[in-house]
Amino acid sequence: MNLLLKEIRRNPLLWLLAFVPVVFIGEHLWPESPTLLFALSVLAIVPLAVLLSHATESVAAKTGDAVGGLLNATLGNLTELVIALTALRAGEYMLVKASIAGAIVTNTLFMLGASFLLGGLKHHVQEYNRVSARMQAGLLFLATVALLIPSTMIEVDSAAGARFSQTLSLGLAALLIVAYALGMLFSLKTHRELFASAAHGDESEAPWPIGVALATLAGVTVLVALVSEVFVESVQKAAEAFGMSQAFVGFIVVALVGGAAEMASAFSGARKDRLDLSVGIALGSASQIALFVAPVLVLLSHVIGPTPMDLQFWPGAVVMMLIATLTAMFVTVGGRSAWFVGVLVLMVYVIFAMTLYLLPPKVL
Amino acid sequence: MNLLLKEIRRNPLLWLLAFVPVVFIGEHLWPESPTLLFALSVLAIVPLAVLLSHATESVAAKTGDAVGGLLNATLGNLTELVIALTALRAGEYMLVKASIAGAIVTNTLFMLGASFLLGGLKHHVQEYNRVSARMQAGLLFLATVALLIPSTMIEVDSAAGARFSQTLSLGLAALLIVAYALGMLFSLKTHRELFASAAHGDESEAPWPIGVALATLAGVTVLVALVSEVFVESVQKAAEAFGMSQAFVGFIVVALVGGAAEMASAFSGARKDRLDLSVGIALGSASQIALFVAPVLVLLSHVIGPTPMDLQFWPGAVVMMLIATLTAMFVTVGGRSAWFVGVLVLMVYVIFAMTLYLLPPKVL
Amino acid sequence: MNLLLKEIRRNPLLWLLAFVPVVFIGEHLWPESPTLLFALSVLAIVPLAVLLSHATESVAAKTGDAVGGLLNATLGNLTELVIALTALRAGEYMLVKASIAGAIVTNTLFMLGASFLLGGLKHHVQEYNRVSARMQAGLLFLATVALLIPSTMIEVDSAAGARFSQTLSLGLAALLIVAYALGMLFSLKTHRELFASAAHGDESEAPWPIGVALATLAGVTVLVALVSEVFVESVQKAAEAFGMSQAFVGFIVVALVGGAAEMASAFSGARKDRLDLSVGIALGSASQIALFVAPVLVLLSHVIGPTPMDLQFWPGAVVMMLIATLTAMFVTVGGRSAWFVGVLVLMVYVIFAMTLYLLPPKVL
Repeated sequence: MNLLLKEIRRNPLLWLLAFVPVVFIGEHLWPESPTLLFALSVLAIVPLAVLLSHATESVAAKTGDAVGGLLNATLGNLTELVIALTALRAGEYMLVKASIAGAIVTNTLFMLGASFLLGGLKHHVQEYNRVSARMQAGLLFLATVALLIPSTMIEVDSAAGARFSQTLSLGLAALLIVAYALGMLFSLKTHRELFASAAHGDESEAPWPIGVALATLAGVTVLVALVSEVFVESVQKAAEAFGMSQAFVGFIVVALVGGAAEMASAFSGARKDRLDLSVGIALGSASQIALFVAPVLVLLSHVIGPTPMDLQFWPGAVVMMLIATLTAMFVTVGGRSAWFVGVLVLMVYVIFAMTLYLLPPKVL
Repeated sequence: MNLLLKEIRRNPLLWLLAFVPVVFIGEHLWPESPTLLFALSVLAIVPLAVLLSHATESVAAKTGDAVGGLLNATLGNLTELVIALTALRAGEYMLVKASIAGAIVTNTLFMLGASFLLGGLKHHVQEYNRVSARMQAGLLFLATVALLIPSTMIEVDSAAGARFSQTLSLGLAALLIVAYALGMLFSLKTHRELFASAAHGDESEAPWPIGVALATLAGVTVLVALVSEVFVESVQKAAEAFGMSQAFVGFIVVALVGGAAEMASAFSGARKDRLDLSVGIALGSASQIALFVAPVLVLLSHVIGPTPMDLQFWPGAVVMMLIATLTAMFVTVGGRSAWFVGVLVLMVYVIFAMTLYLLPPKVL
Repeated sequence: MNLLLKEIRRNPLLWLLAFVPVVFIGEHLWPESPTLLFALSVLAIVPLAVLLSHATESVAAKTGDAVGGLLNATLGNLTELVIALTALRAGEYMLVKASIAGAIVTNTLFMLGASFLLGGLKHHVQEYNRVSARMQAGLLFLATVALLIPSTMIEVDSAAGARFSQTLSLGLAALLIVAYALGMLFSLKTHRELFASAAHGDESEAPWPIGVALATLAGVTVLVALVSEVFVESVQKAAEAFGMSQAFVGFIVVALVGGAAEMASAFSGARKDRLDLSVGIALGSASQIALFVAPVLVLLSHVIGPTPMDLQFWPGAVVMMLIATLTAMFVTVGGRSAWFVGVLVLMVYVIFAMTLYLLPPKVL
């Protein structure tokens, strides 16, 4: 508690923590004001993200950037998993898929690009461990192939097609989870020396004790999940009030707010010239959603959903995921970055966001 | 003038300069003989291209290859811009788009591939600055995504689709111009040291004084533009006489002659082991057309065209641009080249040319 | 003969050679038992593959890995050529195309991936000559473009479309053969020093004399071809008995057994840390099928087939070849490998195999 007060003194953003209880109170007092609840929940998520960022960095300082990045991705994606599970139980598979695709694209393009840009504005040229980046890009490529192939092979309209698609999705889900587990075995155990960080920035901030950091990580993650639920309930109606399309909300808004916690960590890492942390969070998070969250949701849909969910995505979403993956594969070849690389990656994201924003209704 | 005579003595091709006035005379005497005018205009463009090449090299000798390449691309693409503006004013958007796509594909594949091949026949292995090549390839990739996404997302047939496509095209045009400007800021200002040349060949030819070189650049560019107009008016009918398809003329013939000036510079640079100049011209020119000429035409179409022009391309053209970009991204990874790399890139171009030549009418 | 007996003592698998005559006897005694003939022919191909592997390695020890790999690919693909010629004479173009596409995908993904995995399980990190790997990947990319473009450009349903497709296929076939020949000129003559091996493992096994090795190569290749014919005749019916789909048999089973000989060489090279040999066989074999076997079949179809065969493939097959090529281009950028790279490449293959296995009938 003492530590928390010290942090608040140092980072004025943490005063926004006051909005966390306000959200829960507001949920009961004004359940009919989605725009207000939307604004309150965004204001509450920001300081929680800052806390999460500092806690993760404290753990990362103890464990090395690769493990720290992985840890961050795992905990950060709890938010996405909770959101998707809520939608899954309600049978809203369209929303589940849009939020999966949106999270992959947003993490790969926006989080990576903004990290490169923010880091590059402060540091002339930054180096990072490209072995790690390329492995994550390879996993993403595998997941994109797994989503692309069933959509290319067959029309789902027929009964045989639907059965084919469902059996295939189960098999692909199992395969992706195995690939994810083997990837962890590779990077954390058999070849962990390849994943050591390339550059070490200044680590002026004193890290928290490991116990405090872990407890904060756990507690704040739960708070983020609770506030996120208010956010999800309100975002759809608030978006309509602001005149945004369905597709834009599912792909862009949910993904940006859902990933706020990880973004805070990734951007802060980039500013401190610890680009390995940023790249690890951005691509690690994207590949975790593609190879762990999405397959787990497919498997769980056989237990808790009204009907099984398959891995067939809207063709536009598959194209976006493919382009995002190719972009990541292209920019991580050299293991070096400057501000313009970030601009390029962000611009690809802006093209997607622009297209989705202008898309007429009933296309998704 | 003295200098010009000295050049003519050294390079017999420059005797062809006599065809420049012949073209303008022929235009008035035999306006009904497109095949003759076509032949005359090609004969006149070649020596102008040679002059332009030498002038650009003189400037490049003073400014470094990267800036020289950029300068060359800017002036060389005036031809393409003039051609497209003429067609734009007449509302022939199909021709404008074919010449844009053709110029991108021809510069990326033919100019780059032939530079690699011609350089490789003289030098065993050539090195070039891959940072510069990869940045241009990245810009091309961004432009291809901008052309690919709207075509993937929606059918334009409906009224809502047409409106969507037009608004999106305006936004994309603005975004591409911003990306192009930031790219220049990056390569000419904040990170110009990264764009220094990798290899330096022999520079035996005495460069012209900078004043003469700049004046020649300007004057010859105007002449190229004037002759090009005769060329454009005659090429369509001459092509029919030779039995070529519409698609082949728009994509291949116009692009090859329109880029003749830059090709002369690029090929001469490759022979002199100054591959940075060649790669800079080829990819720089392609990305300038994609990120500057094409968006400017979209914006201008709102002012001077009968109706606004959008960025929707024929799917076959988008596929060709995408493959051309992927090829450039693939071959520039290493920053080294030998003759076979040129063969590979040229063969991709020949596949496109062959397909377009054989394409039955009414497909484009 | 003495040498053969010595080999058999050292490698117990060679006892299976006894199945070679049994296959030919079985063919006459039980022509109505496809499942039995299928099992016998697979059992006979395995030891022949082992012999072929050792003979090739003996030659490779004399000539360097690159030439040895090329030699192996040439002889190994005789099997595929014989299979395809049999089907071509019968006019079964669907089967010819499926076996071509399947062989390309299987060599690129399964043979390469399993080599990386098997080598990586024994050696921590393996290096190989990436110049050679990238050239083969480039050739594969060229071939994929040649197969992709005609399928993208036009519907073949119309009469004009069919004529277009046939003329274009002839031109593309000629172009691919020229590219293949130039590639050999490049790697074996003008730039052979670039294709020297990166790593040299232990070569404890005494190589055979060059005469014995060459004679074994020739003789065993003929035996493989003869046994393969029995295999092809029986595989279709045996597959039905096992409940496999048409597409799965053509793409996966035929390709796996048809490539068994090369796989034995590639895997043994990987285990001995001679990854150059493995990569050379896998990618060299794939590009040889794409740039030599397939075009030769197109040209021969004008002579021996009932009607000319074109290069139009089932869209799903084109997508799979494109993804296989992109995977090869991606993993060979660095020239280094570890077991997880093999897992990634193999998983892409498993996704394809799974999809084809589950595909409802009448889709291919």
